Amino acid sequence: MTISARLAELGIVLPAPAAPAGMYQPALAAGPFLFLSGQLPSRDGALPHTGKVGDNVSMDDAKADARIAALNALSAAQAALGTLDRIDRVARLTVYVASAAGFTAQPQVANGASELLRDVFGPERGVGVRTAIGVAELPLGAPVEVELTFLLSA
Amino acid sequence: MTISARLAELGIVLPAPAAPAGMYQPALAAGPFLFLSGQLPSRDGALPHTGKVGDNVSMDDAKADARIAALNALSAAQAALGTLDRIDRVARLTVYVASAAGFTAQPQVANGASELLRDVFGPERGVGVRTAIGVAELPLGAPVEVELTFLLSA
Amino acid sequence: MTISARLAELGIVLPAPAAPAGMYQPALAAGPFLFLSGQLPSRDGALPHTGKVGDNVSMDDAKADARIAALNALSAAQAALGTLDRIDRVARLTVYVASAAGFTAQPQVANGASELLRDVFGPERGVGVRTAIGVAELPLGAPVEVELTFLLSA
Repeated sequence: MTISARLAELGIVLPAPAAPAGMYQPALAAGPFLFLSGQLPSRDGALPHTGKVGDNVSMDDAKADARIAALNALSAAQAALGTLDRIDRVARLTVYVASAAGFTAQPQVANGASELLRDVFGPERGVGVRTAIGVAELPLGAPVEVELTFLLSA
Repeated sequence: MTISARLAELGIVLPAPAAPAGMYQPALAAGPFLFLSGQLPSRDGALPHTGKVGDNVSMDDAKADARIAALNALSAAQAALGTLDRIDRVARLTVYVASAAGFTAQPQVANGASELLRDVFGPERGVGVRTAIGVAELPLGAPVEVELTFLLSA
Repeated sequence: MTISARLAELGIVLPAPAAPAGMYQPALAAGPFLFLSGQLPSRDGALPHTGKVGDNVSMDDAKADARIAALNALSAAQAALGTLDRIDRVARLTVYVASAAGFTAQPQVANGASELLRDVFGPERGVGVRTAIGVAELPLGAPVEVELTFLLSA
């Protein structure tokens, strides 16, 4: 099954690719990889939530934001490659969580992105290595930022 | 000398590979690299210390934790590859240090991981590039998280 | 035009490569990439500013620091490769900004590094993917740390 068929099966419509908010490319093929810029959970140019997880942003909202950021990464990947079917698999996922003091459940927030990728690419190809950390602040006050590296098909 | 012989010479017994604490793989070969998930300094499923370096976690404890996290990475690499002898060298090491306000000696904490890798792989192959940063919070309250990328032998 | 000619045209003299401040290599070629260690904005062994952006470090100073850190990365790359002309393009740039509470303009700080790389390598080869995040503390109190991955020419 192609990834676009799988997205349709899941009822997922990828957002339109966002214009870069700075001097960078959203996605870049380099060597065997597709590198993605850090993705915020923007929807139609706005963030659904701002602030810190463990303070004014709930776990459920943060997980949903991680999922949206991963969808934005897929949108950027599709725009760069023409088709997500050129992706062999998820290689590395880094999830930065803007964390209130004492909030230490970053992996659960990261699961919002991980579950989306597993659903789209399947458990064999959609689950790679992951790092989840709690940071002080993220651009525009986003609670979550997601960074992805895909392995491209040979 | 094989890496397992070198580990024996150093008196190092790798811990059993930990089960993933979320939806990720501990290690993944992709292109010429072996990517490792962010590793916490867990021992037998528990963290030796929790909290912030420069506050309730001492430099010595943090360095020891960075070493344990690196050992956990080696354990994950061995489980993924079958043998550490497939590793050509350490490529990139990132050390995230949960830092109290004003603590700026992240590189010294990172040396706990760097020294272990140098000892195991030798100064030619065990010392790669490194980034050390101070973060707000880490999963489960860990003081240190270590992320590694190895170059595989051709 | 060679990169050294381009640097001369821009009036840029690369700083002497800094000695590593820990157990790492400043730069390492691995697979198709040149990995760089996290670079601080040191000049002649000292930081122009210390502290947090959004507190005692201004946006202009932070952008200037990001540029200096990127110059230090170029110096390390040149020392490792012999010549910057072996670089095909900028692949990944990560900019860590030591951020005061509520400071969320990390991308503008990162532009200090991005603009330098665009100027040196040109808009086609100098602009890759980017992640900008706000962290709690950086080594030696630096306001900015820059991590680069270049793609090498085949």
